[in-house]
Amino acid sequence: MKNSNELIPLKIIASGTALPENRVYSSDLDIKLNKPNGFVQKRSGIEYRYHSDYEMSQAKLAADALHAALQNHQISPGSIDLLIFASAIPIQTLPYSAAHVLKESQLKAGTACFDINSSCVSFVSALNVASGLLATKQYKRIAIVTAEMPSRGLDWEQPESALIFGDGAACMIVERGDGQSGIVTYKHETYPEGLELCEVRCGGTRKNLRTGMDDSDFLFQMQGKPLFKLTASLIEDFTDRVLSSANLTMPEIDTVIPHQASHLGLEHIRKRLNISDEQFMNIYRHRGNQVAASIPSALHEAIMTDRYYGRDYVMLLGTAAGLSLSEMILKP
Amino acid sequence: MKNSNELIPLKIIASGTALPENRVYSSDLDIKLNKPNGFVQKRSGIEYRYHSDYEMSQAKLAADALHAALQNHQISPGSIDLLIFASAIPIQTLPYSAAHVLKESQLKAGTACFDINSSCVSFVSALNVASGLLATKQYKRIAIVTAEMPSRGLDWEQPESALIFGDGAACMIVERGDGQSGIVTYKHETYPEGLELCEVRCGGTRKNLRTGMDDSDFLFQMQGKPLFKLTASLIEDFTDRVLSSANLTMPEIDTVIPHQASHLGLEHIRKRLNISDEQFMNIYRHRGNQVAASIPSALHEAIMTDRYYGRDYVMLLGTAAGLSLSEMILKP
Repeated sequence: MKNSNELIPLKIIASGTALPENRVYSSDLDIKLNKPNGFVQKRSGIEYRYHSDYEMSQAKLAADALHAALQNHQISPGSIDLLIFASAIPIQTLPYSAAHVLKESQLKAGTACFDINSSCVSFVSALNVASGLLATKQYKRIAIVTAEMPSRGLDWEQPESALIFGDGAACMIVERGDGQSGIVTYKHETYPEGLELCEVRCGGTRKNLRTGMDDSDFLFQMQGKPLFKLTASLIEDFTDRVLSSANLTMPEIDTVIPHQASHLGLEHIRKRLNISDEQFMNIYRHRGNQVAASIPSALHEAIMTDRYYGRDYVMLLGTAAGLSLSEMILKP
Repeated sequence: MKNSNELIPLKIIASGTALPENRVYSSDLDIKLNKPNGFVQKRSGIEYRYHSDYEMSQAKLAADALHAALQNHQISPGSIDLLIFASAIPIQTLPYSAAHVLKESQLKAGTACFDINSSCVSFVSALNVASGLLATKQYKRIAIVTAEMPSRGLDWEQPESALIFGDGAACMIVERGDGQSGIVTYKHETYPEGLELCEVRCGGTRKNLRTGMDDSDFLFQMQGKPLFKLTASLIEDFTDRVLSSANLTMPEIDTVIPHQASHLGLEHIRKRLNISDEQFMNIYRHRGNQVAASIPSALHEAIMTDRYYGRDYVMLLGTAAGLSLSEMILKP
C-alpha cells in the first residue's frame, strides 16, 4: 500500500439521504404496463423504487438530504462555507442548480456554491474537487449534494431503461481532517466514442426551440448492448491501473461502493473485478438506478451499516454517460 | 498587500478564443426588427456581435478555442491531463458537455474531464477549482474551456436582453507554476433571492415533457430593473471585502476584467467601484455579452494587449444569474 503521507487529506464528517414519498413497486408497473404479475421485478431486479410527484422539486429533494446530514450530526448550517451540487441532470438550463438548492436550504444567503457534472460519477468528481479546495484552505467545511429525478425523463417505450430508475438524493459533508483520512488514489477517464450511448438530447444548445426537437429528445435514450460492450472492454484494465497506482489488490479493499447501474451490470462488475458479496454495497433492489445519487446513497448506507469508518480502504466505482470511468480509493 | 507566500500558485501558460463566422451588425438587427437605422446600436451599445448558424455546435466552438490556445503556445494536446468545461449553458441535458468537447478535440481519449457551472462566473469558479487540483498534484496541466451560444435562446419579444448577447468561446491552460504567480484572493457569494431574475426554465427536472412547458421556457428571461437593483445593493460592499482581504485598494489593481454584462452595466460597475478607463477591459462593443465566455475572452484580450503578464495585480469580476457575485485577484 501507499505511504500514508501521500494521502490527500479528506474526512467525511456527516452524511444523509432523502427519498420522495411515492414508492413505486414493480407490481405497480406490471399493471401500468399491462404485463403479467412479476414481469417488471424479474426484468429489472427491483422490488420498489421512488418516483417523485410533480409537486416535488429537485432543489427541495437536495435540501432534504443536506438537512438530514446536518441534523444527523448536529452541524450548524452556518458552518458550511461551500455548497457543491453534483448531479447528472440539472434543475433547469439557467441558473445553475446549486443556487436553487441554496434557496431551499437553511444555509445562509451569500454561501459560495457551484455545480459539478460528470454524469453518474459527478459525486466522485466533486469529492476530488473538494479535497483540492480544502488543501488550499479556501474552505473548511464543504457540503456536496446530489439529487436526481430520472422519473421525469423516462421513455416508457424503452422498458430496458424505464424500469430501472429511481429518484433520490444524498449529501456528504467533508473537511480536511487530521490527515489520517483521505484519498489514496483517484482516476477518471472519458472515452467519448461512447458519447451517444446514453443521452437526453434537449436542454442546451443542441436541441431546442430554434434548432428543432421532438418528444424523444426529452427522454432518456440508452443503447444497452453497445454500452455494455464498451464498458466491459475498459473496466478491468482501468481498475488494474487504479489498484496498482495505490499498490493495493481488490481483496485488500474492505468495501466497494459501485454506481447502482442495473442488477445485471452490478453482478457483471462484481464478478469481473473479483469482488466478493461481502465487500460489495448493493442497494439497488430498493432504490433502482438513482443516476449520480447512487454512489453517495450507497456510501451513506455503508456508513450507517458500519462498513466505512474503521475500515482500511473503501473504493467508489462508477461508469457513467460520456462514457466515463471513475474510481477512488478512500482511507476512511 | 498580502505576503507572497500566501498566494495559491496558479500560472496561465496559454490562452485562445474562438468566434463563429456569422457577424451580426446592429444595423442588421434594425432591419430584422423593423426599427429605424441606428436604433439597436444605440440601445445595446454594440456595433456587432457573433451568432452561430445552426450547423455550428457548442462543442466545436469550445474545441476551436482549445486548439487556438494549444497552437498559440505550441502545446501538445497529449500534455493536457484534465479538461474542465466551464459554461452557464450546457450542450444537452445528458451527458455532460466536457465529454462532447473531448470528442471534438485533439485531446487523447481517456482524458479526465468534468463540467463546472456557476452561470456567468463559471470560468472564475473553474480557475479556483483548478488551483486546488494543482495544489494536490493530481494534475499538472489543466485546460479550462468556456463556450456559449446564447443566440439559440433569445426571446426577440424582449429586446432588452435579445439585443445584447453574442456567441463565443475562450480557453485558458493553467499549471501550478513556480509559486510567483497565483490567486491572491477569491470570493464567490450567492444570494438566491435573485434566482428568478435571469433564467431559462427548461432543460432539467423543472419544466419538461412530463411537468409541462411552453415556448417561453426555452428562452432567456430577464427582469432587468430588479436585477440591477439587487446587484447594485451588493457589489460595493462585496468588492470592499475582497480588496481588504488582500490588503489592496482598487488603484493598486492594474487591470480589471469584468463580465461584459451590458454597456450600461459595465459603466455602472466601473464608476461605482472607482475603476479608471485605463484599468478596465471592455470588449463589449464587438462581442456583446458572451455569458460565461465574456470573462475569459476579455482576459485573453488583456493578455494579447500586454495588460496581464508583467503586471502586479489583475482582478476578474462578475455578477451572474443566481444571483452570484465573484471576484478573484490574480498575480500574473
